[in-house]
Amino acid sequence: MKAVLVIADGLGGRPSDCQGRSCLEAARTPTLDELAHRGAVGLVDPIRHGVRPGSDTAHLSLLGYDPYEVYTGRGAFECLGIGMKVVCGDVCFRANFATAEAVSDGLRVLDRRAGRIDAGQQLLAEALDGIALRSDREITFEFRASTQHRGALVLRGPGLSRHVSENDPHEAGVLIPDSRPLINDEAAERTASLVDELTRKSFEAWDDHPVNRDRRAAGEPPANVLLLRGAAELPDLASIEKLYGVRSAVVAGGALYRGVALAAGMASIPCPGATGGLDTDLRAKAAAAVEALVAHDCVFVHIKGTDNAGHDRDADAKTRFIERIDGEFFAPLIEQLDVGSTHIAFTGDHTTPIDFGDHVADPVPVLFVGPNVMPDVCDCFDERSAGNGGLGRFAGRVLPMLLGYCNWSPKFGS
Amino acid sequence: MKAVLVIADGLGGRPSDCQGRSCLEAARTPTLDELAHRGAVGLVDPIRHGVRPGSDTAHLSLLGYDPYEVYTGRGAFECLGIGMKVVCGDVCFRANFATAEAVSDGLRVLDRRAGRIDAGQQLLAEALDGIALRSDREITFEFRASTQHRGALVLRGPGLSRHVSENDPHEAGVLIPDSRPLINDEAAERTASLVDELTRKSFEAWDDHPVNRDRRAAGEPPANVLLLRGAAELPDLASIEKLYGVRSAVVAGGALYRGVALAAGMASIPCPGATGGLDTDLRAKAAAAVEALVAHDCVFVHIKGTDNAGHDRDADAKTRFIERIDGEFFAPLIEQLDVGSTHIAFTGDHTTPIDFGDHVADPVPVLFVGPNVMPDVCDCFDERSAGNGGLGRFAGRVLPMLLGYCNWSPKFGS
Repeated sequence: MKAVLVIADGLGGRPSDCQGRSCLEAARTPTLDELAHRGAVGLVDPIRHGVRPGSDTAHLSLLGYDPYEVYTGRGAFECLGIGMKVVCGDVCFRANFATAEAVSDGLRVLDRRAGRIDAGQQLLAEALDGIALRSDREITFEFRASTQHRGALVLRGPGLSRHVSENDPHEAGVLIPDSRPLINDEAAERTASLVDELTRKSFEAWDDHPVNRDRRAAGEPPANVLLLRGAAELPDLASIEKLYGVRSAVVAGGALYRGVALAAGMASIPCPGATGGLDTDLRAKAAAAVEALVAHDCVFVHIKGTDNAGHDRDADAKTRFIERIDGEFFAPLIEQLDVGSTHIAFTGDHTTPIDFGDHVADPVPVLFVGPNVMPDVCDCFDERSAGNGGLGRFAGRVLPMLLGYCNWSPKFGS
Repeated sequence: MKAVLVIADGLGGRPSDCQGRSCLEAARTPTLDELAHRGAVGLVDPIRHGVRPGSDTAHLSLLGYDPYEVYTGRGAFECLGIGMKVVCGDVCFRANFATAEAVSDGLRVLDRRAGRIDAGQQLLAEALDGIALRSDREITFEFRASTQHRGALVLRGPGLSRHVSENDPHEAGVLIPDSRPLINDEAAERTASLVDELTRKSFEAWDDHPVNRDRRAAGEPPANVLLLRGAAELPDLASIEKLYGVRSAVVAGGALYRGVALAAGMASIPCPGATGGLDTDLRAKAAAAVEALVAHDCVFVHIKGTDNAGHDRDADAKTRFIERIDGEFFAPLIEQLDVGSTHIAFTGDHTTPIDFGDHVADPVPVLFVGPNVMPDVCDCFDERSAGNGGLGRFAGRVLPMLLGYCNWSPKFGS
């Protein structure tokens, strides 16, 4: 038996998307409709009904973890997702290269994304190597650049706390605020002062760095300061293997989703062409999923483009991308799998309607298909059909349900 | 108003049971279909979606208790179910008569079930009476044989703990392992050593017992040692009477189910002919339920055979037994009840599909019927129809819902 969990980010939509129909309703999806015909559909509230999910919390919940119990912030998943090592006790941050200028009372942000810098980030990151943090304790840090202005930072050592405020002001033209301890605690005070120190030292190391001299010469804003947000610890998740005794893997273009899966003990399968965007190579992802199932029992495939189109408020792009998921991902996937011994679950991590352009709390359609799934009467996969589906409505835990259909669940009780 | 809760163990099935249909779908069930027509159906996840239920935890959950909060193990229910008195602080075990031989480094198990011994168990149990446990505290024990090789044991006294490992190796040919404390605690250490002592002393008392001399002479394996597992305390359940102000009773052939009901404060109604097997007298159980409703407001009837057939992977037996439940239990039941003033709920405690032969995490169909139940469009009781049912999908708590339809729920809030 094999299991495939596919999450299309922000898949869900609303009637306002396409003049009375959601993008998923408007899209021509013959493969998904055939899977709905053979399987059963329903509605899933990614976290719980009436809760507007973040991407990280929704994924934790769909994988079977209780985000209210385990979630501390996004930073740890971002760090893991870009290949950093994170251990218990580390405090992890999402980081931005930004542009700032020194003024009399501090550093003023001019561009939070340093003109969406797309070259030289690695050289800047290296310029932070070996910088000592003023601390009588043995605190070290690691910063790694990822895509464009994005990166992640790990603080390591005794007596750190994630309970500190970010120093990203989320707007230009204002001073970089000091990080503040969010609880009355020595570790939080120390960590907040380390965040401030890191930001100051990044400015010292980067403002006159050759990369930025070149950028200024080219009329581009320098990437001369580090902004830190999303302080988090690594949640102590029981691994999928420990919980269910199965080997699992993830195919994802986006770092966050890979990070959540890695925190759950999944192996990361490289997939060149998986960009985390609308230009992703969906056939390559289907092939990577099939390949992953040789050595693993279960593969989780994350597809990001649906959410990007939703955030861009582009109904056509979202509709076309859903059609591509149908034709370029699911069609080759099921052609290459032994459908008699595979269970597939497909859903989204939240709804991203076109006219709102951000996550909302609406439930998301979900589809289960495989030999042990009792078929229902629905033969169409969309929000409206899902409301009549044989699976009813439930909250999160799509992966445990999928593994349950594969007979891999541990028994609770006797 | 009267209430009848009927749980057919392992009722749920899968399309693979009978070439595309579950046993419940394949079975001819005119009475249940008529009840579905008059009432409403839905899907229940016995514990929660994606959780594979044990029988004990599922029954706690269906009766309205949170097994994550109250469940400590099966032993206490087994003890209660075979009529032993259990009080707070006792540590209860499921016990097996087994066959062992003394070897240089301990006792080696030859048959975990002592050839499924079916005579003489009472004499063996009596041979343990009065055996003193080497302890400076006042620890006493009571052992009682139930059916075949099965029994239960209660350890009583100060400073005991349920946090000890079983000493049933679950295979033959290996040494009986020492019981180990599962937490770092003096009470757990003492209890583990008492388990070992009980097992040693059972061998001393039984190995040359006349029952076993006879068994050896007849070529049967001696029942010469006690294996202990499922250490549990009695959960402190608020009784049905305390919670809802109603008098409730249980009709069950299996000890475990009677035990759970007794722990919930139900009265046990004797029912000769209720065997807990496929040969049970279903008409006698219907009659016992009707009789119980004279002095009680609510009766819980447990029917075990469906699960036995599932574990035996016998689709025909399961289908035929479901037809018997329909014709020999429900038909006479509703004939004898005042249907205008009775609410009935029928479900299973989990799904036991034929090709897997054990509990799985799939939801189970559930039926409610009675004057206060809003009828839905379904007029058939099975897994597929239940997915379209007017009751939707929910987790556990079938008894509280049933008592709610009877207007017996306490108000939460004001």
